[in-house]
Amino acid sequence: MGRITVRRSVTRLSLGKPPSRKADFLAAEEPLEIRVGGQQLAITMRTPGNDFELAAGFLVSEGVIARGEQFQSAMYCAGADGTADGLNTYNVLDVRLAAGTPQPDPDLARNFYTTSSCGLCGKASIDAVELTSSYEVASDPVTLDAETLVTFPDKLREQQAVFEKTGGLHAAALFDAATGKLLVLREDVGRHNAVDKVVGWAVQNDRLPLTGTVLQVSGRSSFELVQKAKMAGIPILAAVSAPSSLAAELAEASGMTLIGFLRGESMVIYSRPDRILTTEEVKA
Amino acid sequence: MGRITVRRSVTRLSLGKPPSRKADFLAAEEPLEIRVGGQQLAITMRTPGNDFELAAGFLVSEGVIARGEQFQSAMYCAGADGTADGLNTYNVLDVRLAAGTPQPDPDLARNFYTTSSCGLCGKASIDAVELTSSYEVASDPVTLDAETLVTFPDKLREQQAVFEKTGGLHAAALFDAATGKLLVLREDVGRHNAVDKVVGWAVQNDRLPLTGTVLQVSGRSSFELVQKAKMAGIPILAAVSAPSSLAAELAEASGMTLIGFLRGESMVIYSRPDRILTTEEVKA
Repeated sequence: MGRITVRRSVTRLSLGKPPSRKADFLAAEEPLEIRVGGQQLAITMRTPGNDFELAAGFLVSEGVIARGEQFQSAMYCAGADGTADGLNTYNVLDVRLAAGTPQPDPDLARNFYTTSSCGLCGKASIDAVELTSSYEVASDPVTLDAETLVTFPDKLREQQAVFEKTGGLHAAALFDAATGKLLVLREDVGRHNAVDKVVGWAVQNDRLPLTGTVLQVSGRSSFELVQKAKMAGIPILAAVSAPSSLAAELAEASGMTLIGFLRGESMVIYSRPDRILTTEEVKA
Repeated sequence: MGRITVRRSVTRLSLGKPPSRKADFLAAEEPLEIRVGGQQLAITMRTPGNDFELAAGFLVSEGVIARGEQFQSAMYCAGADGTADGLNTYNVLDVRLAAGTPQPDPDLARNFYTTSSCGLCGKASIDAVELTSSYEVASDPVTLDAETLVTFPDKLREQQAVFEKTGGLHAAALFDAATGKLLVLREDVGRHNAVDKVVGWAVQNDRLPLTGTVLQVSGRSSFELVQKAKMAGIPILAAVSAPSSLAAELAEASGMTLIGFLRGESMVIYSRPDRILTTEEVKA
């Protein structure tokens, strides 16, 4: 866990003052190779930490598993590191699926590569980009009052331990809609990795599908984040910034509630606004 | 170009006020398939517009081309759209390389897929992630006074036409270090796409390598952005937010000047600070 931040010597410069040399902390970014049954499936650029969750959540996002019991075990592959100079050291994680769970299609696995800002790589064609979820978020009867929802960004920031230090990490947090309680928060240089870690936490705690929950993310929403939420059965996705057009379209088509610009006491709702209750509706 | 933003009906909600339904503009996100000589190379989720530049810059980033004359022509493939319902419409662009330019390795091209936030996908192994550039940024003698550099973020924001409307776009801009003049600015839902479009502009104007220039980006710096700058021969990369650890390491190893937290009148310099001159040095 010591590698979540990396210490470096940097030069600080302000106009009119002499430059000063001092230590600074950067968000760690390192490659992780995910294998399933010994076969390479993906390489992702991620912030080290919660790697088992990252692998488990990634497998949910890609439709390889849909329930906790399908993820039997995971282990780091000893001696798989390519170099010893400390710069290119990387980790290899091998996942064993439960008996009866089909292995990932080897054709899809070929050259599967994701960066710190990419969670949708390796698809052979655009038709394969939108995946079919095991779960139906459209029928989730969850509702949430707006007064609770507007507290989530602050709760997320309060818990963001690393961000303060580096300014370089995305965060994703899962909240229980009924109680407003934060269930889990994860951080990563890659927004999609932070979401995969949250979903992987649910896999390891056997909580899929994530009915009745809200996924709160620190930045903006893209197509891939909506898809990850859909694959995990999350009915409400809230972001501090704007969604893309395709994010809004997929959310609407999936029956997911998509929130953007959740700041202060206001928000913009892009799909399924019926789940967000205003004061009048809560009182009624 | 009309698809850079997409108009949607959304619900605005502020605590204590009744919800209001109104039109909003979202940053467009659509898939683009890039082919070379008729062979599929990559699918990227991007904001439509400047697609030829995007393809050209992507080919530079991936080491397929390094000079403008190697990019002979590009054309949209008519009739390649898969659907007509308006939701899944996508574009296919076929690039013709100049005679004598080797085609991309077909093994690397297989399942090459990038999202709106990913520019490094499809690599077969981690060894292939760091690419060898045709250009040597370490030896670029460019210098820049700090007072000029601190004006770049504002100049970038002034030119960002779409961001104001949607709040959802990354921007990348190229500046001439000697004059401080903005050469080109591009926007995209994907930060790496915005950079590819800038580099593609340079390809189309036969300006590679981009010696004596500064690449200014709106967000943070990752490994892939440093790599893209390196492949195009850009000696100085400046970001408004934090870099990752691997971004700083690659910049240092490449001899690139990497700037972060460029805000107001101050900045943090992560590598090659000798290129940034303070007032005292400028006067001397």
